[in-house]
Amino acid sequence: MFVVMRTGASEAEVNGVKGLILAEGLTPFENAGEDRTVIAVVGEIGKRREQLRVRLEATAGVTAVTAISKAYKLVSREFHPENTVIRVLDTVVGDGSLSVMAGPCSVESRDQLFETVDHVSTHGATIIRGGAFKPRTSPYSFQGLGVEGLRYLAEARQRTGMPIITEVMDTSQVDIVAQYADILQIGTRNMQNFSLLLACGRIGKPVMLKRGFSGTIDEWLMAAEYIASAGNPNIIMCERGIRTFETATRNTLDLSAVPLLHHLTHLPVVVDPSHATGKRWLVKPLAIGGVAVGADGVMVEVHPRPEEALSDGEQSLTFDLFDQMMTAITAVHGHVRDLHGDLLASASAPAKAGG
Amino acid sequence: MFVVMRTGASEAEVNGVKGLILAEGLTPFENAGEDRTVIAVVGEIGKRREQLRVRLEATAGVTAVTAISKAYKLVSREFHPENTVIRVLDTVVGDGSLSVMAGPCSVESRDQLFETVDHVSTHGATIIRGGAFKPRTSPYSFQGLGVEGLRYLAEARQRTGMPIITEVMDTSQVDIVAQYADILQIGTRNMQNFSLLLACGRIGKPVMLKRGFSGTIDEWLMAAEYIASAGNPNIIMCERGIRTFETATRNTLDLSAVPLLHHLTHLPVVVDPSHATGKRWLVKPLAIGGVAVGADGVMVEVHPRPEEALSDGEQSLTFDLFDQMMTAITAVHGHVRDLHGDLLASASAPAKAGG
Amino acid sequence: MFVVMRTGASEAEVNGVKGLILAEGLTPFENAGEDRTVIAVVGEIGKRREQLRVRLEATAGVTAVTAISKAYKLVSREFHPENTVIRVLDTVVGDGSLSVMAGPCSVESRDQLFETVDHVSTHGATIIRGGAFKPRTSPYSFQGLGVEGLRYLAEARQRTGMPIITEVMDTSQVDIVAQYADILQIGTRNMQNFSLLLACGRIGKPVMLKRGFSGTIDEWLMAAEYIASAGNPNIIMCERGIRTFETATRNTLDLSAVPLLHHLTHLPVVVDPSHATGKRWLVKPLAIGGVAVGADGVMVEVHPRPEEALSDGEQSLTFDLFDQMMTAITAVHGHVRDLHGDLLASASAPAKAGG
Amino acid sequence: MFVVMRTGASEAEVNGVKGLILAEGLTPFENAGEDRTVIAVVGEIGKRREQLRVRLEATAGVTAVTAISKAYKLVSREFHPENTVIRVLDTVVGDGSLSVMAGPCSVESRDQLFETVDHVSTHGATIIRGGAFKPRTSPYSFQGLGVEGLRYLAEARQRTGMPIITEVMDTSQVDIVAQYADILQIGTRNMQNFSLLLACGRIGKPVMLKRGFSGTIDEWLMAAEYIASAGNPNIIMCERGIRTFETATRNTLDLSAVPLLHHLTHLPVVVDPSHATGKRWLVKPLAIGGVAVGADGVMVEVHPRPEEALSDGEQSLTFDLFDQMMTAITAVHGHVRDLHGDLLASASAPAKAGG
Repeated sequence: MFVVMRTGASEAEVNGVKGLILAEGLTPFENAGEDRTVIAVVGEIGKRREQLRVRLEATAGVTAVTAISKAYKLVSREFHPENTVIRVLDTVVGDGSLSVMAGPCSVESRDQLFETVDHVSTHGATIIRGGAFKPRTSPYSFQGLGVEGLRYLAEARQRTGMPIITEVMDTSQVDIVAQYADILQIGTRNMQNFSLLLACGRIGKPVMLKRGFSGTIDEWLMAAEYIASAGNPNIIMCERGIRTFETATRNTLDLSAVPLLHHLTHLPVVVDPSHATGKRWLVKPLAIGGVAVGADGVMVEVHPRPEEALSDGEQSLTFDLFDQMMTAITAVHGHVRDLHGDLLASASAPAKAGG
Repeated sequence: MFVVMRTGASEAEVNGVKGLILAEGLTPFENAGEDRTVIAVVGEIGKRREQLRVRLEATAGVTAVTAISKAYKLVSREFHPENTVIRVLDTVVGDGSLSVMAGPCSVESRDQLFETVDHVSTHGATIIRGGAFKPRTSPYSFQGLGVEGLRYLAEARQRTGMPIITEVMDTSQVDIVAQYADILQIGTRNMQNFSLLLACGRIGKPVMLKRGFSGTIDEWLMAAEYIASAGNPNIIMCERGIRTFETATRNTLDLSAVPLLHHLTHLPVVVDPSHATGKRWLVKPLAIGGVAVGADGVMVEVHPRPEEALSDGEQSLTFDLFDQMMTAITAVHGHVRDLHGDLLASASAPAKAGG
Repeated sequence: MFVVMRTGASEAEVNGVKGLILAEGLTPFENAGEDRTVIAVVGEIGKRREQLRVRLEATAGVTAVTAISKAYKLVSREFHPENTVIRVLDTVVGDGSLSVMAGPCSVESRDQLFETVDHVSTHGATIIRGGAFKPRTSPYSFQGLGVEGLRYLAEARQRTGMPIITEVMDTSQVDIVAQYADILQIGTRNMQNFSLLLACGRIGKPVMLKRGFSGTIDEWLMAAEYIASAGNPNIIMCERGIRTFETATRNTLDLSAVPLLHHLTHLPVVVDPSHATGKRWLVKPLAIGGVAVGADGVMVEVHPRPEEALSDGEQSLTFDLFDQMMTAITAVHGHVRDLHGDLLASASAPAKAGG
Repeated sequence: MFVVMRTGASEAEVNGVKGLILAEGLTPFENAGEDRTVIAVVGEIGKRREQLRVRLEATAGVTAVTAISKAYKLVSREFHPENTVIRVLDTVVGDGSLSVMAGPCSVESRDQLFETVDHVSTHGATIIRGGAFKPRTSPYSFQGLGVEGLRYLAEARQRTGMPIITEVMDTSQVDIVAQYADILQIGTRNMQNFSLLLACGRIGKPVMLKRGFSGTIDEWLMAAEYIASAGNPNIIMCERGIRTFETATRNTLDLSAVPLLHHLTHLPVVVDPSHATGKRWLVKPLAIGGVAVGADGVMVEVHPRPEEALSDGEQSLTFDLFDQMMTAITAVHGHVRDLHGDLLASASAPAKAGG
């Protein structure tokens, strides 16, 4: 349930409500919107619901106590109508601008990373991506450079001034990855690694949560709720294709997910056409599609010489293809943003908490 | 295999090749391109392949004999590099313009049809859709008005001057539907109704082939090949969502299919966001997405009062929503067409056969 | 809804109820069980429901009027608690015995058919299968011998005294197939070919309805309802695998469907492990599995020389493998039948109507 | 690749081969079969393959050096033809006997666990299951008793003398779970949690690896390979249903996986019909099906009062239903084991390593 405070409720009144919730062994989450403050009550409420509602309604400063219709609370638009806007270094995600996360699938060497970064950072990318810990189907495949890769990524940040996003595969890696990276990525196979979700919920850096390749929209939002419930409101959702019967593409990019999420949640949504299609030549058209349906950004893999890549070469863009894609999506983004206004309540108004 | 004639080959030479193929009990299909004529050899070639190749190569006017790498021949871009452009009444599909097929899911009455048609025909639609024979999951649901519905559709054509598309469910209906409609639609459940495909291949009107909700891209192209092999080159492919584990949408719209098809086939491709999403408010964003990835058109359901619709009311657009969608996709279409040039070899050059 | 007559209701009373239903433009279906007669009311009842219920309850001989909770009526166990038992020539399906439908995928020649039939008919098969009209993905693949194949099948019946099952692909083939075959098969791609379902509902021979490879249990039962509502109660359900992401098998055999169907419907259920797995060596273990979960029979493909088969050679059993499978499933059938008693209310009591 | 030693090769010869492999930075895995010893070479061999093969072939005691055709090596039957037989306390899994893992979904209290355990341990179960750390879709659902639950499980082992299996969700829990449990379970959502797989590969206790609900057979075997490559050969595979379009059951139990795995791997395979179906009344028929297709065991959820269960009550068996299932599967197991002999090379011959 959530508690709507009256416009102009005092800090003391807000704290009174929070205290009552804490005293019940539950957790209050505050969303201080422009007009009014809303406090979500989170935890196992069970049979106390009705009694608690009555007591909260009778508390000073409270206008209404409402049920949240979804199983996810903190990440729902019901609780938090304004878009979440995430600022990392000088970059912003979710404010109506177009985020472009680009870089190699794996950091293979200092040279390969810098060569790629030097290109994408000067041709439209806003965030540098690169894998240091790599989840590979086979234990005998290249597993990434690990901490060495993280160090190169940190150097790449210094070199470009741009934030770094990289994957964290396990709770034991959260601290070290958070030390080097600006945004932590949770991969598709870990969407329901609940221990990892909670661990990423306890750090002070934004998290990008990839959709599980067989995760429903509801499960994906519940996974985001895990992160939010642990205290981290800065979550980016990334649609990267789902597993279906079709084999012509590596996965099936579910572009319906973008408007659906914009309707259901206040979190920014980006699209990864590289993993979704698994084919270099399909990245541009699907990146265009993603931007056209209203995505806040795209994530793509770029490699100086894809044929030599240690992972995912088939789907990595050459520099030339990256430039073509950038030209296309920049043009499309300029035209479509206004078309989805009805789905994006208040794109430019970041909330105090949660944004 | 297909036989490439030399530039400027005479009609006699072309006929010589065709005669040789016919004498083998196989069927020749001619594609007279701008530069040169190509003749596909279709049928069960089996073990004669090598011997036949040698004889064809030695025939007057022949430049080369090549294998087609796909199981589908006539609908492949390998055989027919130019886009197929389909003209129906005053409308053209596949020439780079944006086709908009709109109308009610079911023709429910003369009034309901005309009310809808009067709106969409004056607000951007280029083709009128409406179901007379309705495939329904339950035998106890409204099954459509049948021939009465076809008659109203023919009246709607007279009223608007626009072509009519409607579904044919069975071989026994092909003649009567072809008598009234301008384009015959094969529904998703009939994508592999091979008898119906062949029957639609023998008529002189264009056919729109919806993707089976569990049909792979390859199976879909093979289904189109059935129609083409029976003599009908005027086929429109319609992506309408595939069945996946996700239940937040009725089906999952596979927008990757659009660039994939443009790469693999010369046939025009439209997108149906109404059936794919099953939700009215998702039609506009996905229609935008479809146009953005390069679709030649969209098909949508419109109803004057969706809440009273006898079928698919949930996904039918109101007139107002139709207008909003039209504004959006018209704007996007103007901007994106050039962005996909690499996938669309020669959009403005209709072939003699096949176009 | 359905109308429960009192025990010992007279024919006049039953006819009175039927007359009232017919007068409403609806159709009565009678199930004369051992204890009492039940009459289902089928058609678009709509808003008349409550009024009709009251009138029926007040009619002579009526004990109760009840709603059927499922969208399918005639095929539901609610309406018809006793198992449907189907007699064809000297064979019975659904009476607790084990039906084995065996024969070649395609009838390729008189010799090939007879060689196969001579083996399987003397080694445990109870019904002969063989395709005359073949649904093939490619228009250039062998399409079956057609009517010639039907004639050979009729000869095979004479030769063995066993009933013949073969596929009908289109409404236009129903008459000719029904003339030669004892059981008509509707293939997986035609599960929702509603015209074909209705046409098969109007003939006097049993129909085997294969599950669509992407058909849900509910859709499958609704498809059976089409056949039953057109007047044909003798329907056999055949689980043949569903399309999933897994590619190690051709499809995924859904053995849960067997107990589910036995719970939801009174119709017999057989399992086809040949099409489900697509691999010869998996046929025996999955046939065992099917019998173990309570299937009323299995359908398998057998070929004298699978490596020469014109279709589905990979999954065809050799004579030797067929014999091994027969030994195994006969043994298992003897042991498991009693274990599923709770799902099979009254396996040995065929109903008057519907059985 | 793997190195086949001659029959009677000396320990010195075996060590010579191992030394050569280690010197290359690769890892040797020895399978000492009855006749001869085979050594798998594991790691990134890359371009050294041919050179290494020649050198190994020339080494004393070596009969042949062969490629393994699959991406998984150590878990393949090619490398290790004998079945892996796992002994835990007085129980054996994979030796042809029927393993029955039973207990509550979650350990909810000491009383609930003991009440359940007292029943199942005296009615046919061979291993006690119970969740202490629970992966839940919602962060607000009951998350299990944690270490307290582990302690109760250890008490249950003392009470019954039977081994305990419980889930480990994260690398950080491996040590504590391994301290209390006899078999560690990796859940469906963690099948590709590669860090957890490696951590479980480094402990000295058997691991049961559930199939990811969207994991292919190949990915599942590669996940097992992660565990084996880290040094733990004692792995049990558990089929628990895959995610498909069908919603009549919670998941679709893929019983084809059982014979497929028995063909591809030497590891034992059990089936979990509780999670697969999500419906109590379907557990018995599918447990029968699983045993019939050759599974080495079943895992089921049992609760004294399922309607009060804190998780998965819908699918939990009552004591009475558990007893009925036990009677059924015991009977079936006695009859079917011999029927699958061709898939189970040498069921009674545990290997020295790997078994």
